[in-house]
Order: sequence, then structure tokens, then C-alpha cells
Amino acid sequence: MTLESTVAAIRPADEAAMAAARGHQARLTKPAGSLGALEELSVRLSGLAGTCPPPPPEPATVAVFAGDHGVHAQGVTPWPQEVTAQMVANLGAGGAAVNVFARQSRSDVLVVDVGVAVPPHGGPNLIDANVRRGTRDLTVQPAMTRDEARAALEVGISVAGSLIDGGAKCLLTGDMGIANTTPAATLIAAFTGTPAERVTGRGTGIDDPTYRRKVSVVAGALGRHRADPADPLGTLAAVGGLEHAAIAGFVLAAAAHRVPVILDGVVAVSAALVSAAFAPDSVAAMVAGHRSAEPGAAVALAHLGLTPLLDLGMRLGEGTGAMLALPIVASAVRVLHEMATFDSAGVSEK
Amino acid sequence: MTLESTVAAIRPADEAAMAAARGHQARLTKPAGSLGALEELSVRLSGLAGTCPPPPPEPATVAVFAGDHGVHAQGVTPWPQEVTAQMVANLGAGGAAVNVFARQSRSDVLVVDVGVAVPPHGGPNLIDANVRRGTRDLTVQPAMTRDEARAALEVGISVAGSLIDGGAKCLLTGDMGIANTTPAATLIAAFTGTPAERVTGRGTGIDDPTYRRKVSVVAGALGRHRADPADPLGTLAAVGGLEHAAIAGFVLAAAAHRVPVILDGVVAVSAALVSAAFAPDSVAAMVAGHRSAEPGAAVALAHLGLTPLLDLGMRLGEGTGAMLALPIVASAVRVLHEMATFDSAGVSEK
Repeated sequence: MTLESTVAAIRPADEAAMAAARGHQARLTKPAGSLGALEELSVRLSGLAGTCPPPPPEPATVAVFAGDHGVHAQGVTPWPQEVTAQMVANLGAGGAAVNVFARQSRSDVLVVDVGVAVPPHGGPNLIDANVRRGTRDLTVQPAMTRDEARAALEVGISVAGSLIDGGAKCLLTGDMGIANTTPAATLIAAFTGTPAERVTGRGTGIDDPTYRRKVSVVAGALGRHRADPADPLGTLAAVGGLEHAAIAGFVLAAAAHRVPVILDGVVAVSAALVSAAFAPDSVAAMVAGHRSAEPGAAVALAHLGLTPLLDLGMRLGEGTGAMLALPIVASAVRVLHEMATFDSAGVSEK
Repeated sequence: MTLESTVAAIRPADEAAMAAARGHQARLTKPAGSLGALEELSVRLSGLAGTCPPPPPEPATVAVFAGDHGVHAQGVTPWPQEVTAQMVANLGAGGAAVNVFARQSRSDVLVVDVGVAVPPHGGPNLIDANVRRGTRDLTVQPAMTRDEARAALEVGISVAGSLIDGGAKCLLTGDMGIANTTPAATLIAAFTGTPAERVTGRGTGIDDPTYRRKVSVVAGALGRHRADPADPLGTLAAVGGLEHAAIAGFVLAAAAHRVPVILDGVVAVSAALVSAAFAPDSVAAMVAGHRSAEPGAAVALAHLGLTPLLDLGMRLGEGTGAMLALPIVASAVRVLHEMATFDSAGVSEK
């Protein structure tokens, strides 16, 4: 599907299904509201599916979109760029953190090279969909052309469509890309109108001089490109990354198929701002897996109106925070399918 | 095992195993600290097990200890007392929330009648270990005799020992008992020295007049019994409940066996204060599954020095918050077993 046809297919949440879910929650054998955030999540997922109960969100797959960044040349991270390709190989071999969490939740990991600087070696779960071998340096020119950004968006759309055709009932976003929290912070600043110093974090754990350099890179990029959030493709092309673009498309396609998509950390939520700018109703498909320790993540989540399920001080990416949240999402849906009602269990009400 | 022999078997965490876990975390293919709370949890569980990596915490069983409360006569809840036995039957039939969550995490549910007012009907997973048919009204006399409190503690010790002998690698606490947040609040006030109004919550969702009555019941019980936290058995007997006592013993036995125990909500953490008063080193075995919406839960967790894994606004009990946290605990341990190191994966360091 193209970007335009995907956006056109996105519909608002179904109010009747949401009302049915609220009504069913009130009949289950528990005090009203006692399942907290899981109750509201079950209502949202019913609205997305257009039916109550919604389908269980398993099997699930995390797609880890990998890319490199021209802004790496500005010294925004101490990690060498070659680590992106090395970590793609690690993800392919099953040794990365998200592979470990996926085995715990009996889910699949797919790795997508959408923009790695050198052709990575991967296993059978690596897809080569490289649009270009790393972005340009956003401090001196747009990171991508509009056509490149569109191509990367459509990689994400295509991957989501293939996974859903293959039986996936829930998608999870993942990312791998040395320096990719710099374009993430810039996207968040551009779409939310927040100053660079409030959305820029320490990523992998950078020192003070590197942090100050990173803030000035983000602020400089905002000043140079003066990106217009009403032009999401142009903003994405100017200050984003190839994996950010792919994730934005992946999220739009999930919404078009009415399949939930669990967002990971700061890269995911920066991409979700792009999705929401293209199609505000796509937010109905988004579940915020966790609150990354990166400060921009909370800013983006607030802008999207999403409350994260987990807040564990994590900042690893790869889809790790989304994968840890999957059993909670599945539990929220399972409540609607399996819990007894006061009537069925013969339990007295207050 | 008796209470005394259980307490005597509890040892401090193993510092060498904790240091080994910290060293291993530093070699895994991720930025230092990027797994947040999961890293510290993996260190604590290594210290508990005395080895790194510690055993995976599966299979796991939640024991739901059920009891009734003489203080129900004071009008602290709108739910009739008969609901305790009805919910025991629901738990036995697999229709309660914790049954649903346990199926999601492929874990077992055991229900233990340690103090239900009328003999409940249950399924094959119900154990009859009734010590007395509900406590006395703590507003007029001690809720239990010291011998009754000890007997209930030893029910918990016995249940934990049987589960561990049967192969359980992780225990989860659960509770069911109409009115049981009143003794929970009183225990928390007594052990932490916190005023009644700061630890008393709305339980199942009570109205303002009931809430004011509940606060005055808690404050009155504190004044009447003047329980001495240096006498944990006497305090437990005066203002606790039979399921609170059983959970306290269950936690002590987990610690004695060096098996992790995931604490559920306000009833669990009030019982854990009793465990910690008997054996401060028992805290090393405790994992705070979630922060209950009940205000006393946060007070008790702070007193124990525990940070909860989840904060989802839940206040259902039964072990639901502990069960939702189990996959996170398992993921934290799995990282130490399965993640690649920089050397093994050939990934460059910064």
C-alpha cells in the first residue's frame, strides 16, 4: 500500500464497541475500576477492533528497523557507527536484549535494514529493505529527500502488512541505530514545539560535553530547517531518520488494519508523532509500552495523549520496552474474554 | 517448619553473587544501565540465590490466602461477608482476575482457606487450612490470640514449603477477604508509625461516610491495642487478619528457601512488614510486584525499601499485581542467562 492509501484507510475508534467494553467491565467479578489502566486499555482495544471483546494480541512480532545517521559525524555519541551493523548481526543471532524478552513472551523478532550504512550480516529474520546507506547530516542539509522519506515510510507499511497477512495480531516497534536519539529529539521538538534542551537526553549515557553538543545540534537543526509540522513528510525528511520513517509507516499500517501497535521508547514515540500528523485517528491503534528515561519520550507521549504501561527507567530501544508490555496488553484483553461475571459466578454485589 | 526455625534459616543476600551480577551486566551488549530497574532486580535475585545467574523464576505459583474479618461488623465496606466464600469458589472455578492473568503467564493458582467464615466450596486447587472462621472484631478485642496468629503464620510457611518441594521457583502472594484492607491499614500504621488517615484507603471503592468510619476504626484500633512493633506476633494478633498472618509466614518461608516471592498489593505489603519485623533479611527475597492504589501500600513499600515494578492504578488483590509482574521478573533473570556479551557478539564498545 502507498502512504496515501494507508492514511485514507484509517478510521476513528468504534464508540459502540468501547461502550460495550465499559459495560462488560462493570459486570465482571471485581470492584469497579479495580483493574486500573487495564480496564481503559481493554476499552481502547475494543474501539480499535470495532468489537468487544477484541481479538487476543498474540501472536505478536517486533520489527526492529535499523538505520544510520549522518549526524553521527557531529560527535553526538561515543559509540562508533559500525555498532549499528554489529548489533543487527547480534539481533539476527538472537543475542540482543529484545531477543531475550521475545523468547520470554513467545514472540517473534524481525530485523529490517532500512538505512544501515554498510550491508549488515544477519540471520533468516533479517529483511534487506535499505533505502539509502545512512541519512545525510541534518546539521548541514535535510537528512533525506522527500522521496527517500516516503520510500522508508512505505517500507514500514509493507512490513506491517506482511506481518498481519502472516497472522500477527499485534505489532511492536523496535529500532537500532547509533545516534538515532538525536533525530528523535529533533522530531519531538518540531512536532510539539518544545525547546531542544527539554527533549534532548543522554541516549546511551553520554558525558556533559557530548550532551551540550547534542543539545546544540538539535537546536541548530530546528533553526536551520524551520520544519513545518503541518508538512509531516517534509519535517520527517529534514530532521528524521530512515528507521523513524519506517516506524511511522509501520504504525500507520497497523492503524489501517485495526491491529494494535505497542510503541517502544523515544525513537518510537518520535515516529508516532509523524504518524499522528498524517492521521490523527492512528493514535487509537497505539499502546504506549513504557516511558523511556529519555526526556523527549514523556513530551511526545503527552502530546499523543498516551499513558505508558511501564516506567522502569529503561533506555535501550530495540523494542525492549514494548516487548515487556506485551503480556500486560494480552492480560487486559484476556480479562474481557475469560473473567466470570457476578451473574455467572453467583457472587453477590455490594 | 515452625516460625522460629524458619526465621533462624534466613540469611543475608550473598554479596559475591551480587558483585558477579553487576560485573556480568556491564559486559552485555547494551549501554550500561539501559535496562533500568531490571538490572538492579537481576542483582538482587543473584544475591538471594547466592549465584549468578540465579535460577529462572518459573514455574511459579500464586497462593491466594482467604479469610474473613470480625471488623466487617463495623461497616467498613458495602460488600457482604459472604462474598469471600463466593470468590473462593470463583477462584476455584478459574473465573477470577488472577486466574485469567495466571493463564497468560502459564502459572498456577492455589487457594488456601486460612480463615473464611463459612466453609467455602472450591475446586481441586483449594486447600482447607482454616485456623478459625474469621477473626474477632479488632475494635473490641484482639483479632486473634497469639496462638491463632502463629498457627496462621505456620499455614503460610507450610504452603510455601510444599510448593517449593513441588518445584516452584517463584512464589506470588495473593489474598481474598472482604474487609481485609482495614487490618492491612492498621498493620501498616502500627509497623511504620504512620497516622491512620495516611494509610487508610477506599479499598473496593467506598463512599465518603464509609471512608470516614474506616479511618476512625483504624485509629481506634491503634489507640486500643497500642501494639508494639518490636513484638510482631502480638501486633499481628491484635490488629491483623488470618490471611495477613499466612502471607507473612509464606514470605518468611520463601526467604528461608532463598526463593523469590513477588508481593501483590496492600494486604501483601502489610504482611511483609510483619515478615521483616521477624527477620529483616527476609526483604532480600521480596520483589514488589506493583504499587496498589491503596495509599498504605506506598507507605509500606517505602518502609521496606522496595520499588514496585508496576504502577497501573490497580487495587484488586488476589495476587493480580504480582502475577502481572512475573514476566518482568523472569525477563530480568533471563537477561543474565541469554544475552550476548560485547566479546561473544563481536560488538565494539564506546
